[in-house]
Amino acid sequence: MDELFLGIDLGGTNVEVGLLDTQGAILARDSFATEVKLGPKSVIERMAQACEKLIAKNNIKRDRVKGVGVGSPGPLSIAKGILINPCNLPGYANVALRAGVSGKLQIPAILNNDANVACWGEFWMGAGKDVKDMVMFTLGTGIGGGIISNGELLTGYDDNAAELGHIIIESGGRRCGCGQLGCVEAYASANATAARAIEALEQGRPSSMEKVRKQNNTITCKDVFEHAAAGDKLANEIIDGTAQALAQVCVNMLHTTEPEMIVLAGGMIKAGTLIADRTAHYFQKMVWTIKKEPTKICLAKLGGDTAIIGAAGLALHAYKKRSLYPIGK
Amino acid sequence: MDELFLGIDLGGTNVEVGLLDTQGAILARDSFATEVKLGPKSVIERMAQACEKLIAKNNIKRDRVKGVGVGSPGPLSIAKGILINPCNLPGYANVALRAGVSGKLQIPAILNNDANVACWGEFWMGAGKDVKDMVMFTLGTGIGGGIISNGELLTGYDDNAAELGHIIIESGGRRCGCGQLGCVEAYASANATAARAIEALEQGRPSSMEKVRKQNNTITCKDVFEHAAAGDKLANEIIDGTAQALAQVCVNMLHTTEPEMIVLAGGMIKAGTLIADRTAHYFQKMVWTIKKEPTKICLAKLGGDTAIIGAAGLALHAYKKRSLYPIGK
Repeated sequence: MDELFLGIDLGGTNVEVGLLDTQGAILARDSFATEVKLGPKSVIERMAQACEKLIAKNNIKRDRVKGVGVGSPGPLSIAKGILINPCNLPGYANVALRAGVSGKLQIPAILNNDANVACWGEFWMGAGKDVKDMVMFTLGTGIGGGIISNGELLTGYDDNAAELGHIIIESGGRRCGCGQLGCVEAYASANATAARAIEALEQGRPSSMEKVRKQNNTITCKDVFEHAAAGDKLANEIIDGTAQALAQVCVNMLHTTEPEMIVLAGGMIKAGTLIADRTAHYFQKMVWTIKKEPTKICLAKLGGDTAIIGAAGLALHAYKKRSLYPIGK
Repeated sequence: MDELFLGIDLGGTNVEVGLLDTQGAILARDSFATEVKLGPKSVIERMAQACEKLIAKNNIKRDRVKGVGVGSPGPLSIAKGILINPCNLPGYANVALRAGVSGKLQIPAILNNDANVACWGEFWMGAGKDVKDMVMFTLGTGIGGGIISNGELLTGYDDNAAELGHIIIESGGRRCGCGQLGCVEAYASANATAARAIEALEQGRPSSMEKVRKQNNTITCKDVFEHAAAGDKLANEIIDGTAQALAQVCVNMLHTTEPEMIVLAGGMIKAGTLIADRTAHYFQKMVWTIKKEPTKICLAKLGGDTAIIGAAGLALHAYKKRSLYPIGK
């Protein structure tokens, strides 16, 4: 009988849990409100309960479940299995999340940050299924990243590798929330894309977006994409700026870990292939001419399932490599 | 009795060969003029002869030599062991260098590009001895790079990872020889540093370097460093520009593979610690404030020995992992 793996995704709003087989099929899933304020003990307790329910409801023989993967907002320590100081989870600093979950369930576990987990999901079962070297950018409020090199997730010396949103693309450029100047996140995240549109409107640039701004007192990234699709010149210019910023970091990643495929994920890709197409266009315009670079730039495929697939998949990968952490550790 | 490994460095001018033990000690070494025009067959023949001599002269039992590491200018294929189209070795396209050397010597071998080999040398026996995650920039005519992540050299999907000189630091910036705009190589290589000094002098900026330029009709990177050390304002400004460009790619590498140590190597570091100190200074000014980053930025330690140490070391590493390529393959 095939081994099974649990995937848990801890978010600021919801916790998702899934039970998967070694082929990546989701046998069962559930979710519940995180209710951050109830504290980490309560969250860990409810995570374990939700997992137990998935096992019980599906009449799974408990010893088939060989590992639990947990994804969480960072920064965190993969080696120690603890959260460090996650912005979205106030009061969760130094929580031993892996030991807590693993101890309750009495199953070996592994912890990694949510961007890495999502990247692993796409690598294992999504867009990156057939490649060994992949990079993923998650385009949302900020820009998250993940790097797979030769089939392994890069974690760096202090478990903070692949903070790709903070690659500087313009020296002395736009101020980023992280304190740096010129981060790609300050140009190409959903928030920064909307912010650049608002700045242009404030400078009096004509655009069909102005009506929306008057109505709602603001502009969202979704608005920019909608107006671009409808042919608005300024909206297209703003999205070109987003694509150019992304293309530059794609060139930089090519010359760094040399991925075969770069996957775009996150809220921004709900608008369709436009962002991937334009990024690929500018990538080819910007990249060196020494050799042809067939790097694929494409959209993520798994949507909302990435997190639990990635978390369970990382547990499977660690199980195969005998690197799951022992029960309760 | 300890195993031994041969390291060979193929350069455009000289070939260096060394015989090393597993502790990184160089038991014997030699070098000869490459004479590129004699063709690859001749070079491979002379490489093998030089290696045989090292073994014979030192009364080494031949079966103690377990592997040969070969470093060569890229681009090349690590998997196939062939040179692709190295600029410095005209007429050497598609040469099966690994199979040639390994076949002549009847010893399993491994091939990698010279920047990676140098990086491995510093990682194994030099500045990076005590870290698992390291990045190296070789600052010469151009800028070469190497990345070690979790104790392994990153090679990328097509063996062209770590072309770190071609990370773009300024969109639409200075033209690089590779065809891109704004590569760090176009700002911070020895050539680019000299070029920026010449441009400033041509704009009429006052400097003690002007006398040298008049005398020699040009300025070298060495001149810039000498005049900076003597207190010339413009020379210091130019070197600050070099350091700022390097600091930006150091920040970018921190957010990519997250090295614990960044090593500067190549001709430019002959001028001493100034470049590492200033790069470290600007790194701390530029890097995010979310967490303290103790990333060490320091100089390479092995000097001219890096190539043969790295090549032999890579052969040892592959031997341990049973990934040396079979004799003559």
